[in-house]
Amino acid sequence: MSSIFTKIINGEIPAYKIAEDEHHIAFLDAMPLVKGHTLVIPKKEVDVIFDLESEEFKNLWGFAQNVAKKIKNAVPCVRIGVAVVGLEVPHAHIHLIPINKVEEMNFKNERLQLSAEEYADIQNSILNS
Amino acid sequence: MSSIFTKIINGEIPAYKIAEDEHHIAFLDAMPLVKGHTLVIPKKEVDVIFDLESEEFKNLWGFAQNVAKKIKNAVPCVRIGVAVVGLEVPHAHIHLIPINKVEEMNFKNERLQLSAEEYADIQNSILNS
Repeated sequence: MSSIFTKIINGEIPAYKIAEDEHHIAFLDAMPLVKGHTLVIPKKEVDVIFDLESEEFKNLWGFAQNVAKKIKNAVPCVRIGVAVVGLEVPHAHIHLIPINKVEEMNFKNERLQLSAEEYADIQNSILNS
Repeated sequence: MSSIFTKIINGEIPAYKIAEDEHHIAFLDAMPLVKGHTLVIPKKEVDVIFDLESEEFKNLWGFAQNVAKKIKNAVPCVRIGVAVVGLEVPHAHIHLIPINKVEEMNFKNERLQLSAEEYADIQNSILNS
């Protein structure tokens, strides 16, 4: 069964994409902890990130590195935090989270409600960074 | 100035190491959120993980993948969570955290106080997994 992320990859569900190549895609999290909270995923459907083949795993992180640098240039923050949890959507994904303090990386925090305009502004800032 | 992690790399501070190669080392966190909480670091002193050169960055994650698989085999858990925060020790480090629920990845949680025997038991379980 297709995960929600595969529907995003296939364009069946809209998303604010900020980067894409043959094997990977990055888009703004629909339930962001902070502005600029991004998900990086492999297009290959795999549940547990560590189950990716070694080269696939390393290339996913290489892609994420470039995305993180673009987010850092666009979104005011001290660091880009990284998290992989994997207890919800069964499609491996890396969270890139612009943070100023560690408390912002708590997944039990209330999520931001952003307007379409706010999402588009963040997307454009990152695309142009 | 050497970070505490460089002192561990140089053997000036003891640590419960679980993996090491020429460029990387993994050891049990001295302030663990859960049993098996591990830090993976590059031996190269760099503060921001994304500042590593692309191949160095990918190889660090490749090393972490192998460590995560060993931890998963040794420590009962649903997933190995991943986090990079970087607001404390100025030497890039990846947290690998055996989790059963997302709440366990909150860095504001109280840390475990483990005895030397408990640390050694966990270390041996992972080394032998």
